[in-house]
Amino acid sequence: MNKVVSFGEIMLRLSTERHLRFSQAKTFAASYGGGEFNVAVSLANYGVNANFVTKIPANDIGECTIKEMRKLNVGLDNVAYGGDRLGIYFLETGAGTRGSKVVYDRAYSSFATMNDNDFNWDEILKDVTWFHWSGITPAISETAAKQCLKAIQTAHKLGITISCDLNYRSKLWNYGKEPHEVMPELLKYSNIILGDIDTAYFMLGKNKVQPNYQHKDSLPTLYDALFAICPNLQIVATTLRYTVSASHQRIGGILYNGAQVYNATIKEVTPVVDRVGSGDAFMGGLIYGLLSYKQDFQKALDFAVAACCLKHTISGDYNLVTVEEVEQMMLGEATGKVSR
Amino acid sequence: MNKVVSFGEIMLRLSTERHLRFSQAKTFAASYGGGEFNVAVSLANYGVNANFVTKIPANDIGECTIKEMRKLNVGLDNVAYGGDRLGIYFLETGAGTRGSKVVYDRAYSSFATMNDNDFNWDEILKDVTWFHWSGITPAISETAAKQCLKAIQTAHKLGITISCDLNYRSKLWNYGKEPHEVMPELLKYSNIILGDIDTAYFMLGKNKVQPNYQHKDSLPTLYDALFAICPNLQIVATTLRYTVSASHQRIGGILYNGAQVYNATIKEVTPVVDRVGSGDAFMGGLIYGLLSYKQDFQKALDFAVAACCLKHTISGDYNLVTVEEVEQMMLGEATGKVSR
Amino acid sequence: MNKVVSFGEIMLRLSTERHLRFSQAKTFAASYGGGEFNVAVSLANYGVNANFVTKIPANDIGECTIKEMRKLNVGLDNVAYGGDRLGIYFLETGAGTRGSKVVYDRAYSSFATMNDNDFNWDEILKDVTWFHWSGITPAISETAAKQCLKAIQTAHKLGITISCDLNYRSKLWNYGKEPHEVMPELLKYSNIILGDIDTAYFMLGKNKVQPNYQHKDSLPTLYDALFAICPNLQIVATTLRYTVSASHQRIGGILYNGAQVYNATIKEVTPVVDRVGSGDAFMGGLIYGLLSYKQDFQKALDFAVAACCLKHTISGDYNLVTVEEVEQMMLGEATGKVSR
Amino acid sequence: MNKVVSFGEIMLRLSTERHLRFSQAKTFAASYGGGEFNVAVSLANYGVNANFVTKIPANDIGECTIKEMRKLNVGLDNVAYGGDRLGIYFLETGAGTRGSKVVYDRAYSSFATMNDNDFNWDEILKDVTWFHWSGITPAISETAAKQCLKAIQTAHKLGITISCDLNYRSKLWNYGKEPHEVMPELLKYSNIILGDIDTAYFMLGKNKVQPNYQHKDSLPTLYDALFAICPNLQIVATTLRYTVSASHQRIGGILYNGAQVYNATIKEVTPVVDRVGSGDAFMGGLIYGLLSYKQDFQKALDFAVAACCLKHTISGDYNLVTVEEVEQMMLGEATGKVSR
Amino acid sequence: MNKVVSFGEIMLRLSTERHLRFSQAKTFAASYGGGEFNVAVSLANYGVNANFVTKIPANDIGECTIKEMRKLNVGLDNVAYGGDRLGIYFLETGAGTRGSKVVYDRAYSSFATMNDNDFNWDEILKDVTWFHWSGITPAISETAAKQCLKAIQTAHKLGITISCDLNYRSKLWNYGKEPHEVMPELLKYSNIILGDIDTAYFMLGKNKVQPNYQHKDSLPTLYDALFAICPNLQIVATTLRYTVSASHQRIGGILYNGAQVYNATIKEVTPVVDRVGSGDAFMGGLIYGLLSYKQDFQKALDFAVAACCLKHTISGDYNLVTVEEVEQMMLGEATGKVSR
Amino acid sequence: MNKVVSFGEIMLRLSTERHLRFSQAKTFAASYGGGEFNVAVSLANYGVNANFVTKIPANDIGECTIKEMRKLNVGLDNVAYGGDRLGIYFLETGAGTRGSKVVYDRAYSSFATMNDNDFNWDEILKDVTWFHWSGITPAISETAAKQCLKAIQTAHKLGITISCDLNYRSKLWNYGKEPHEVMPELLKYSNIILGDIDTAYFMLGKNKVQPNYQHKDSLPTLYDALFAICPNLQIVATTLRYTVSASHQRIGGILYNGAQVYNATIKEVTPVVDRVGSGDAFMGGLIYGLLSYKQDFQKALDFAVAACCLKHTISGDYNLVTVEEVEQMMLGEATGKVSR
Repeated sequence: MNKVVSFGEIMLRLSTERHLRFSQAKTFAASYGGGEFNVAVSLANYGVNANFVTKIPANDIGECTIKEMRKLNVGLDNVAYGGDRLGIYFLETGAGTRGSKVVYDRAYSSFATMNDNDFNWDEILKDVTWFHWSGITPAISETAAKQCLKAIQTAHKLGITISCDLNYRSKLWNYGKEPHEVMPELLKYSNIILGDIDTAYFMLGKNKVQPNYQHKDSLPTLYDALFAICPNLQIVATTLRYTVSASHQRIGGILYNGAQVYNATIKEVTPVVDRVGSGDAFMGGLIYGLLSYKQDFQKALDFAVAACCLKHTISGDYNLVTVEEVEQMMLGEATGKVSR
Repeated sequence: MNKVVSFGEIMLRLSTERHLRFSQAKTFAASYGGGEFNVAVSLANYGVNANFVTKIPANDIGECTIKEMRKLNVGLDNVAYGGDRLGIYFLETGAGTRGSKVVYDRAYSSFATMNDNDFNWDEILKDVTWFHWSGITPAISETAAKQCLKAIQTAHKLGITISCDLNYRSKLWNYGKEPHEVMPELLKYSNIILGDIDTAYFMLGKNKVQPNYQHKDSLPTLYDALFAICPNLQIVATTLRYTVSASHQRIGGILYNGAQVYNATIKEVTPVVDRVGSGDAFMGGLIYGLLSYKQDFQKALDFAVAACCLKHTISGDYNLVTVEEVEQMMLGEATGKVSR
Repeated sequence: MNKVVSFGEIMLRLSTERHLRFSQAKTFAASYGGGEFNVAVSLANYGVNANFVTKIPANDIGECTIKEMRKLNVGLDNVAYGGDRLGIYFLETGAGTRGSKVVYDRAYSSFATMNDNDFNWDEILKDVTWFHWSGITPAISETAAKQCLKAIQTAHKLGITISCDLNYRSKLWNYGKEPHEVMPELLKYSNIILGDIDTAYFMLGKNKVQPNYQHKDSLPTLYDALFAICPNLQIVATTLRYTVSASHQRIGGILYNGAQVYNATIKEVTPVVDRVGSGDAFMGGLIYGLLSYKQDFQKALDFAVAACCLKHTISGDYNLVTVEEVEQMMLGEATGKVSR
Repeated sequence: MNKVVSFGEIMLRLSTERHLRFSQAKTFAASYGGGEFNVAVSLANYGVNANFVTKIPANDIGECTIKEMRKLNVGLDNVAYGGDRLGIYFLETGAGTRGSKVVYDRAYSSFATMNDNDFNWDEILKDVTWFHWSGITPAISETAAKQCLKAIQTAHKLGITISCDLNYRSKLWNYGKEPHEVMPELLKYSNIILGDIDTAYFMLGKNKVQPNYQHKDSLPTLYDALFAICPNLQIVATTLRYTVSASHQRIGGILYNGAQVYNATIKEVTPVVDRVGSGDAFMGGLIYGLLSYKQDFQKALDFAVAACCLKHTISGDYNLVTVEEVEQMMLGEATGKVSR
Repeated sequence: MNKVVSFGEIMLRLSTERHLRFSQAKTFAASYGGGEFNVAVSLANYGVNANFVTKIPANDIGECTIKEMRKLNVGLDNVAYGGDRLGIYFLETGAGTRGSKVVYDRAYSSFATMNDNDFNWDEILKDVTWFHWSGITPAISETAAKQCLKAIQTAHKLGITISCDLNYRSKLWNYGKEPHEVMPELLKYSNIILGDIDTAYFMLGKNKVQPNYQHKDSLPTLYDALFAICPNLQIVATTLRYTVSASHQRIGGILYNGAQVYNATIKEVTPVVDRVGSGDAFMGGLIYGLLSYKQDFQKALDFAVAACCLKHTISGDYNLVTVEEVEQMMLGEATGKVSR
Repeated sequence: MNKVVSFGEIMLRLSTERHLRFSQAKTFAASYGGGEFNVAVSLANYGVNANFVTKIPANDIGECTIKEMRKLNVGLDNVAYGGDRLGIYFLETGAGTRGSKVVYDRAYSSFATMNDNDFNWDEILKDVTWFHWSGITPAISETAAKQCLKAIQTAHKLGITISCDLNYRSKLWNYGKEPHEVMPELLKYSNIILGDIDTAYFMLGKNKVQPNYQHKDSLPTLYDALFAICPNLQIVATTLRYTVSASHQRIGGILYNGAQVYNATIKEVTPVVDRVGSGDAFMGGLIYGLLSYKQDFQKALDFAVAACCLKHTISGDYNLVTVEEVEQMMLGEATGKVSR
């Protein structure tokens, strides 16, 4: 059976309810999430043996996180404990003409201040099929970037498939290094990369790609650049988002395996219940698709797009759907009927 | 004054709130509903003397049901008490690309296990104008089917107008009989039938109609088949639903009186607040329309369609609207204005 | 720095939640609002020194109102205390094909029964830049109309810019006078008027304008009529609303400065979270725009329209947005992205 | 079967939740209540044919009231419709050392402004066993006092048993008359009176009784005074309350039938979930007790005290308990056991 | 490490919030529980390897149960899937003079209708230290009783310590057998029994013990009777409850090891947040105490009593406390201080 | 008019609702608080001109804090903006035998990382009557301690009355200094000190006082020690708490002015709605009492104790009561009556 390990930060998510603005909220809905963890949850829901490696504080809030991970059936044997605090992000959910807002309060978290000896990667990655990381971890702190590299190198050494979601976050990267000073070294070992042109612009350095989203050659240029930089790269993919409003998105996807470009049909997503984590849902769907449908790249891509669409209808960071539900969506079956 | 009697099961409805999935819910909204009861509520709201015949357990949950029925001004003089439990259905409300789900927990209910002497139909139907039943009751249990027939025959004997909503539920019909072994005998006495081609396919037996929804001749074929089977049939109607997503429906309707086909204008319904019970809202509107507008079948159909549309905007199974509100909708008056 | 004074009634707003009908509600969300107060809140959010003049009862409910005003940073040095009660309005929030409903319970309020000596206008309007009133105040009671005139005349005497939102409310005007007997005298002194043709039909008297909204000459006729009646008029503007459903509006605007007509691009607003107060958001945006962009009337109008659109996404009467957010919307920047 | 008619005002009750102060509340729990209506609900719960006579506005809020009354199985055939508004009271629920607060907003209500021809008392009181009124109605307005007298005189004429709860409210009686100018005439016809010494002090006039609650002779003096004033008086009773805190009461009762004094055992009531309506629960229990246990005055009193105690555990104005539950409490059966 | 297996039914618990009566509730809080499962949760919280054996339906509601068990860290490797429905119990939480009420809706559950081959007891009980069952399982159905016996016999054969909570439920035992026809055979193998005199009266047969709770010899009589019937019995214990009200309990305990009687100090428990599951908390504490403190029976008993007290402060069926919290309570440390 | 300045940290408070444990919470109630701010709120409620000096981040969460302070009528002209984050504390509210728990997440807050030039104390303290600080600020960070000293010295120089609540928090003081190395210097200038023996034990150094709470001489010893250390000391006071359970406290107080000891009557406080901030409520009451009742120290102490008691009944950190409410409590007037 496939065993996937994902490495990253899990945060407490505090979101306003019913589209309230921050200043109107008297309660926050409390849940948990983080890019790499959300990928692990997707996989666990699809029946994959999914494991998450992170560090959380040894206090009651950390314990809540553990209970949540356990409920979601994500393996947590290699979670490290310690440090001062769990990272937090505040979310104000927009609607229509008003976008959602995130206020990060994740500095000084247990994960950001991890120690060199918190993780024994040879142990952690034993018997593992797939290792997943994202561009958020090296953006958090120098130690996080260092551990990320160590994990990636170990995975590479053990012949494990490595996937990366570029996930550029402009509000991070505050520890004195630019993304392009760190990321290329990390990407070298990756076999599957998810990313778009704007993200890559920052990640790869400014002379590599230009952030012109609309230009028809921008994606081919990006893909070529990535294949040039990453000797182990096999697949690169991009989530396509055409935004109508905060409540209405059109979602597609593109995948390139170095030989052929695959496109997925654009799907209408309205209303958007919660779009946070929809990129992670794409990533989780893609990993599942590649693991399950092997060389049928079109099907893998379609699964990722359908998973991404469904995520927009679910509150919280996670894509709480089954393989059957995603496949039913791929078939385009009517959702307006009540299943009874 | 018209007096309508409706016969069927009322259930406790436990639904997740704010589009949560079942596994996310820490509370369930508790309300009540059931196809035939929902029709009675519609009629009571329209000022008709509406009565409901059912059986509920003699416990605190049953008592809650009674209080709800009383609040809604539905007559409950002929409710039977006894049995083990109130049927339950769990509802997960979808959105956009994710459809709603119903999990039934209605087996062994007081209604399903009714006794032969629970209802004195001659007494119940005295001075009654209209009797309504649906295809759900004979699907529940053999006794329920038996009582349903007894009620229908009594109504027919007393010259009462009889309406039926075909309402096929694939998860019921578990007691050993197929719909087509039971329904034709029951339908024989009905004067008004609401149903679509897919439903009829199961109800009438496979050689009667083909479940080809898209074919332009499918409805005429169905209507001819129904008139052929049901000697007392006067009107047959169908709710037309074109599903864009779980949050967006297009609603129309069609009515055939044996001589002429009437069509209603398609209406956009978005967002869908709650679509459960929208078919019952159509049925309730149709009965009211036929009672009130007599031979103006177009107006009766338009009332049914407008009522059905409004139901989609209301939480819970019932169509809590007045005649004035439905008629205002029929006139196509702007709803974007705040009435103040 | 600009100092704006707004005069009117503030009410307790009791609204049903999650689109429930009144009869389904077991709780009411409690907030506060009123046309002229909502304008003051908009301005306070934009950083303008905004003050509100009203009368509230000297009881616990009145005290809640004071705390709310304080939170919103609206100056309340000239609030009068006394009388029997705070006006209330009940709001049932519609969706899709079902419009919202307001039930007023504002008769006999402290504001409606104000005394002649509750407000010292010379004192209140000292050092003030702008005075705002609306057609609601003179509709409430004879004393309110009288105080409104006194305020306007004092403002005129002191050379203060005066704006008026016509705001016709058919359920008010119950004290024996028709709008056209009262409004023209009040409008004489106004420099900026916001209103549409239907409103003006009632306000100006039936022989002045005809309520034919669709006719292409109706707005020019209205504007000419207003300029003819109001010797101090400089600008007249209208919010354009094209209603698709209770959940979907198309919003534009038009402004005429006596010389040139300015039009704003129509914007799609869907879903509508709460449309109450969207006209006040337009008015607040227009005042801010005229104060800040001076003779750039197009920009002032665009600001008003963008502000109005954003209001539809916010629960409650107030437009809780910043100048930056409105300006970002004017630039048409994508709202579907999460700001993080 | 006994048929009871109760006459008075029903109000919308808006209460803060979880002991919040008014200024902390963002929602109000909405329910309904009023002294005389609460008595009717008690009786309906005990299986008595209970009817309520009142006047409510013909708007959506009035309609909510009707649905609530219907749910509670209180007869409302003689409810009058019209007037401007439903009376409201705001409730802040205290705890421990902080008492509860009520802010009335009931002036100008439909009930307070009733017309002389709203009620046809001969019709209303036909076939009635018992008529109940309280000292609140004559305190509301002159017309209300006048209708109250008319109702009482009609009831007396028809030989109906008349009960009165003195219920002095200092914040009412604002229409120019003192209680002692109005109440004695009304009390003359009453057969059963519930009241305490402080209440009676105001009701009967200052020279009749002295408000010395502690003095051991105060109650006998009151009772003698009442028997002297009221020629039809048969029974007078008093709820005894020993207040420990807002969350802890000790409840007893005393009853005098002109011949003998009956005392009930003091019961501990803690915590107090909601004490509003507990006096009405006593009154409702007393009426039921006198109707059911006839000359067993001790049992009637014990029933009233037990009912009053139970009310303190129930949210809202009504005592939602059955005869079985009250009788179980009279037997002193353990409540700490879970009934399962 | 100790490994405990508990066998029984887990139900969906639907409880009213804020002490509402059933008829007032518009939502039910949804959680899960059942006597034997609650014991497993206690042990998991104490760090014991706790496993639960049950049967749940293969539908969405069953899946929720699985997620909950996983969150609570209870092993579920031997859960069987199938059958029609998850048992439900409705809970109305009382206060003060009003007791809590349970309405069972657990008939026809997956557990009650288990098959003979659902559980392979030799497999399940391999390497197990302790097996726990209660008097509820043999009360549910004949098959359940049969499986219970099989489990017990297997455990006995394997030399596993067996504990039983007598847990008499009068509303069960509906399948045609009396407790005393079934229980003695099952109890024969038990090493530890928790029970009180009233329970034992029914369980053991009427001539064995008399249900005279107050008599000072009743417990010794019970204990002697149990030791006489159960050849493997080592310890018998009883939770002592002195009920002041639904909100106030006094909790103690007694333990007899065949040689010596141990008593625990009575503790005041007020207010009671939720008393359901408090007996299971005692049982879970007792098992933990006996496993951890070995022959220090006084300490084991004190742990059980402290655990039971703490449970009363926690919403839901489970005793969500740690060993440290229970031991702190045993030391009688002040709880009024905020730990910060 | 008196003008009071309070200096300290304000935090976001995230508390579980309805006594839920952290791991059960799906929402957190969001409010704000902090020892010194709570004192300012008390004073603002009493009509005193209260100002708060703190530092908050320039983000949306900081802006929420500003709106809250404004609502509460606390002057915020001298709030500094900047830094990374608002401090947070998580609160699990206990009940009965289970105490409340606080998890701090306040490290690295804007306040803890304040700069030397954030506050201009000469400017801030101009025209100020009273300056209040507590032992929390010097425990947070070295810079905070330094600014605290600067503020105190400036206040002393300007002849402002200085009060201090010792407020020892064992989880703070992490920056390398012991309390007794810092506090004595700060206390030297204080005129009024609130503290108990356990707190003082840590604050003053171990050889100054012994932490023997029960010993009858402990408080006199503490008071003598404080007068010995603090040359400007005029009054020292202690809140007396006798804890029955997390839901039941007995509150008293003692005050010593160097000449005479004043005692307040012990009051029962049950149930405790929220005890966080009750010490601050005592402090706020004491300041108000000393400002208002001058040399009537008994009355000042009684006011402080009554204020402290009332706080226990109010959710959140603040004591939202008026002078009238505290004085009514001082008179011991019954709280069990509903004020209407």
